[in-house]
Amino acid sequence: MNLQPSRGTRDFLPVDKIRREYVLNIVERVFRKYGFDPIETPAFESWDVLSAKGGGGEAVKNEIYYFKDKGDRELGLRFDLTVPVGRVVAANPNLPKPFKRYQIGRVWRYDRPQAGRFREFWQADIDTLGSSDPLADAEVLAATGEAFKELGFKDYTIRINNRKILDGLMQRAGISEKEWLDVIRSLDKLEKFGRDTVVKELADKGVSEDIVEQLLSMIEMRGGAEVLKDAKNILKGIKIGEEGIKELELILNYLKIFKAKNIVVDFSLARGLDYYTGAVFEVFVKGGEEFGSVAGGGRYDQLIKAFGGAEMPSTGISLGIERILEVMEKRKMFEDIGKSFTNIFVVLVDESIKDEALKIVETLRSEGFNCDVNLRKRSLTKQLDYANARGIRYLVIVGQRDLKEKKVTVKDMATGNEDKVAIKELAGEISNFI
Amino acid sequence: MNLQPSRGTRDFLPVDKIRREYVLNIVERVFRKYGFDPIETPAFESWDVLSAKGGGGEAVKNEIYYFKDKGDRELGLRFDLTVPVGRVVAANPNLPKPFKRYQIGRVWRYDRPQAGRFREFWQADIDTLGSSDPLADAEVLAATGEAFKELGFKDYTIRINNRKILDGLMQRAGISEKEWLDVIRSLDKLEKFGRDTVVKELADKGVSEDIVEQLLSMIEMRGGAEVLKDAKNILKGIKIGEEGIKELELILNYLKIFKAKNIVVDFSLARGLDYYTGAVFEVFVKGGEEFGSVAGGGRYDQLIKAFGGAEMPSTGISLGIERILEVMEKRKMFEDIGKSFTNIFVVLVDESIKDEALKIVETLRSEGFNCDVNLRKRSLTKQLDYANARGIRYLVIVGQRDLKEKKVTVKDMATGNEDKVAIKELAGEISNFI
Repeated sequence: MNLQPSRGTRDFLPVDKIRREYVLNIVERVFRKYGFDPIETPAFESWDVLSAKGGGGEAVKNEIYYFKDKGDRELGLRFDLTVPVGRVVAANPNLPKPFKRYQIGRVWRYDRPQAGRFREFWQADIDTLGSSDPLADAEVLAATGEAFKELGFKDYTIRINNRKILDGLMQRAGISEKEWLDVIRSLDKLEKFGRDTVVKELADKGVSEDIVEQLLSMIEMRGGAEVLKDAKNILKGIKIGEEGIKELELILNYLKIFKAKNIVVDFSLARGLDYYTGAVFEVFVKGGEEFGSVAGGGRYDQLIKAFGGAEMPSTGISLGIERILEVMEKRKMFEDIGKSFTNIFVVLVDESIKDEALKIVETLRSEGFNCDVNLRKRSLTKQLDYANARGIRYLVIVGQRDLKEKKVTVKDMATGNEDKVAIKELAGEISNFI
Repeated sequence: MNLQPSRGTRDFLPVDKIRREYVLNIVERVFRKYGFDPIETPAFESWDVLSAKGGGGEAVKNEIYYFKDKGDRELGLRFDLTVPVGRVVAANPNLPKPFKRYQIGRVWRYDRPQAGRFREFWQADIDTLGSSDPLADAEVLAATGEAFKELGFKDYTIRINNRKILDGLMQRAGISEKEWLDVIRSLDKLEKFGRDTVVKELADKGVSEDIVEQLLSMIEMRGGAEVLKDAKNILKGIKIGEEGIKELELILNYLKIFKAKNIVVDFSLARGLDYYTGAVFEVFVKGGEEFGSVAGGGRYDQLIKAFGGAEMPSTGISLGIERILEVMEKRKMFEDIGKSFTNIFVVLVDESIKDEALKIVETLRSEGFNCDVNLRKRSLTKQLDYANARGIRYLVIVGQRDLKEKKVTVKDMATGNEDKVAIKELAGEISNFI
């Protein structure tokens, strides 16, 4: 029998699971601070629902876990958390709007497994559904920035743009509307493939050299509020572009009030997905270059309507938990995170004192300590090895001789320090340790 | 498009999701106190692995979500959390033993949906793998009891038995070994279907009336350590039975030291599954009668070997989260749990003071409050309705006039009390409220 998890999926043993929980707890706490509440949706959705997003259609079946149940229902494992929330909002028209929800969970894609890419992976999403206010975008970004800060990243960057500005640029450059998306996708490659590739690709699409240069000069602008000025000049008189600039200005204003840091306006940012309609954003961290962004999102004012609901201007972001974890591993950001939730291991010098030792275990647990006790017939050394292998820091060694003096030995495995402690004072003493 | 989640699965909107998190957090905290560490495994496993447990074989395919991926791999959604941990332990022979793990997550079964039975549902499991010490069983039970107590159940009962005692009884009654499991399964129906049904079923199996009476007289014994005495007499000289009694005595002794309450020895308890080899246990709560037990488990010393690993005496329990939640709903045990994690909603009297209001929002969030703010152009009343619908308790109302005095109005939606508070003192004041 092959005992490995199936291709593209992984087991998380305690050390790794504890790190994941650490990350998700921080992210969740920040999401809550910004007024988002949690929802949960099923692992699988009907194929009807899954195919409503984007123009994927039948081809999507090859990229997801699609199957039929015994009732011949067409189902698929969810491939993101946006489709489910879209369905939920459409199915529950009475939800108070805006509906600010977070959802943290796994999604599945039938991708070719490679570095940082799995078939089962976790996402942590916040979305505000039912608000067109740029403040909603700013909140999403402020929460995201704070989450990265709280995780210990000082060097994250949040890049921001607006699809309306790109549309305005297309108009200014005289590109016909049906080619906008195509050209924008080419421009989006600037960061990844460089200027020459983009120039060539656009030339192949018939965009004249002058216009390519004009587009690129703006696209290459990066910075704070100051780059908006230049963009404003370029887009003067073009309604959609001016609208995009206005939204971006408001978002930057709110972000300043929220004391958000590391925000960079980047006119090359487009995000491939065609359902974005306004602000778009991506987050980058040092050490995550191989993945590109570690979080991404934007405003999608038309998507929810696809589920048959009412007009529902919405914005949100998805944090790629696998990538964040991988960068944090690589950068050794988990050094202070324990290998076990268990703080104390009670060692039995011999079986005759077992009941006495268990009374101590009971006391420690009732005082709120996470406490384990030897469960195998084995030597003192083997018990120490066990506690050590699990990464349990404190040992309470219970032996006949100490017990006569109503004492036990406490050993700190990290420092090697040992102390005799009166049983009565044990819980208090250990509080000082931990 | 059908917007309902697919058959047998459910969406959890914030109110329900918050209740689930409340329950799972308590359970998890208790599990940790008893020295269990978390693991995570994939949602799907290979069919090989899934079919290793019990004698289900091909028939199991009809009871689970079985499918093939594009690489023609036979897969299935996990139907419990025991199979995955069995595979994990076999695949990682170097894990320190005993391996004490908890796992909380969803599992899937292609069941006929009915009250309390879903196709996607949550389980919370603890298992100690690699210890034959009855102390391991006692810990599982003590942790379980504490979890139910912490959830607010005062009236839970933990019933406990040992399969070896039942085997001993079979031997005493002169029933041939190959019929043991069959007869034990009949006896297991005593609670549910009554004495007459069991007598008839056993008679049909050819068990004589005398022996049925003898079996039932013991099986009907319930109570504490005192019932063990009678059992001891009945089983005198029968090795397997005496072993079972001894184990049960030890477990009861440890449970006493752990101050565990509501333990009842119940010789009728067998649990249908044929992989249990020693102690078996089930938990019952008032209000959960329609489901039978709300948690169940036992010792399974042979199961893990089925994954090709070494001998691995193991014990564990699975808490049925859906049933627990349903009983808690029915018994109104969530009255004190908020509908939202958001404590404060900042109301904008008009848009002109938006930036000022956002500064207040920023301060409240940076002080650690979960704080939301109006994101739609709407009247004061509509903003209050929104906060009310979400179940947000405190309003901070920001208006032009108050701002001139550097004040805001704080309103407690639960009591209706309103207060003018200096902005500088807002965070402190609200701490007193919350």
